[in-house]
Amino acid sequence: MGTTQLESVPEPKYWHLKTVISEALDSDFAVGEILPNERDLAARFGVARATLRQALEQLELEGRLQRRRGVGTTVAPPRMGVDVSTTQHAWPADSGQGAWESLDCSTAVPPLAVTRLLETEAEEETHTVRRLRAGHGQPVAAELLYVPVSSVPELSSIDASSGPARARAVLRELQRLDLEGQDRAVELGSARADDARELDRLPGAPVLVVTTRYFSAGRTAAVSMATYRADTCRLTFGDSGDLEISHNGQERRAS
Amino acid sequence: MGTTQLESVPEPKYWHLKTVISEALDSDFAVGEILPNERDLAARFGVARATLRQALEQLELEGRLQRRRGVGTTVAPPRMGVDVSTTQHAWPADSGQGAWESLDCSTAVPPLAVTRLLETEAEEETHTVRRLRAGHGQPVAAELLYVPVSSVPELSSIDASSGPARARAVLRELQRLDLEGQDRAVELGSARADDARELDRLPGAPVLVVTTRYFSAGRTAAVSMATYRADTCRLTFGDSGDLEISHNGQERRAS
Repeated sequence: MGTTQLESVPEPKYWHLKTVISEALDSDFAVGEILPNERDLAARFGVARATLRQALEQLELEGRLQRRRGVGTTVAPPRMGVDVSTTQHAWPADSGQGAWESLDCSTAVPPLAVTRLLETEAEEETHTVRRLRAGHGQPVAAELLYVPVSSVPELSSIDASSGPARARAVLRELQRLDLEGQDRAVELGSARADDARELDRLPGAPVLVVTTRYFSAGRTAAVSMATYRADTCRLTFGDSGDLEISHNGQERRAS
Repeated sequence: MGTTQLESVPEPKYWHLKTVISEALDSDFAVGEILPNERDLAARFGVARATLRQALEQLELEGRLQRRRGVGTTVAPPRMGVDVSTTQHAWPADSGQGAWESLDCSTAVPPLAVTRLLETEAEEETHTVRRLRAGHGQPVAAELLYVPVSSVPELSSIDASSGPARARAVLRELQRLDLEGQDRAVELGSARADDARELDRLPGAPVLVVTTRYFSAGRTAAVSMATYRADTCRLTFGDSGDLEISHNGQERRAS
């Protein structure tokens, strides 16, 4: 099973500490509470600060802690379930289910990766709609929606040339097309600087990247690349109505 | 938008370096190639080793690099698409689509988080089937499938009491039930030690945790918690047949 000899690798030092802190979070702290500083925590648990820091990083990755500039480390609330199922069979829309807001629109040749997904000619321009999704009053995702110019030929030159109005005009034209299907993929990524700013995170923070292809008239009519906050979001895919998995992040996969 | 002032935070130092290395990976290195050691790389790019290390960590998070004990840092192949759509409407099965292998089965009171998902009584026992999923000859996911004892009342005492045979007996009994629906959630987690060993990763490595609830006779008949490698996998959800997003991780969201 691979080239490494993991059987011989012991659990890292901070692992036990992580479990101990996790239990302390359950019993001694409330959601939103600010943790003591690293020096005090290291003293409390009798460990080196480097070990403590590793354990805290792990707990942040698991959604138990949030580290915020100017605030410190706080106990995270349960992750919120964000519906990203493809069962709605709908074009992206403004202020629809999930509270998407259109911020801007520009028209240019897209990155090569997008060209490949769209299977357009290398030099074909796309309208790029930038949207932000909010949940419970917080930003949860930043999206770039790429729409080839040829997908929306009726887009009028009398429409606004940029800004939210232009974005809404592109979405309106998409709605005219017959949506034949869509597919979606989720993978781990790191926040680009502009996404990070909109999501209130630091650049490089782990994010869940959701890529969606929208199919119409036998071709890919649009591609969405949405960056979801991995610390606060749990992406839900349901085929059973509005059921939502109700456990919180901290408790998944307890052993 | 939140309590921090991210607008005033400049891009971190390693960010530009990450982009430069990423371009070098495209032009100067092949998939699987081992990178020079950190000292040589730092010298090549004229940066401090700490900065280099941050950039490498970021590239690992984005799936561009793989760090393997005893091998070093290698250029990662494109992530593989792993189908986790709920459209199949099927109970978990052995060696079915996606090549799941049953490893073991035990019977005990599950963790509290699982009890909540199953909505069973606190002390009700579950059969816990441990499975491993492979793709292209590599382990991609480790799963714990929790099946309340009451979901499979016909499970016979003459069936094997543990091991793969017992696991298959539990799956066989599940197949008898009428599957009414399922839902699925994806979130970021970190690999537990036992999962890490099976997935050929180090404990604490970022993973994608997929939680599935299976519904039958108006209740949750089983819950699966599967840990997917985040470095090598892209989880795909399609409603358009077997279409698969064909771009590789390294190229998503290029700017």
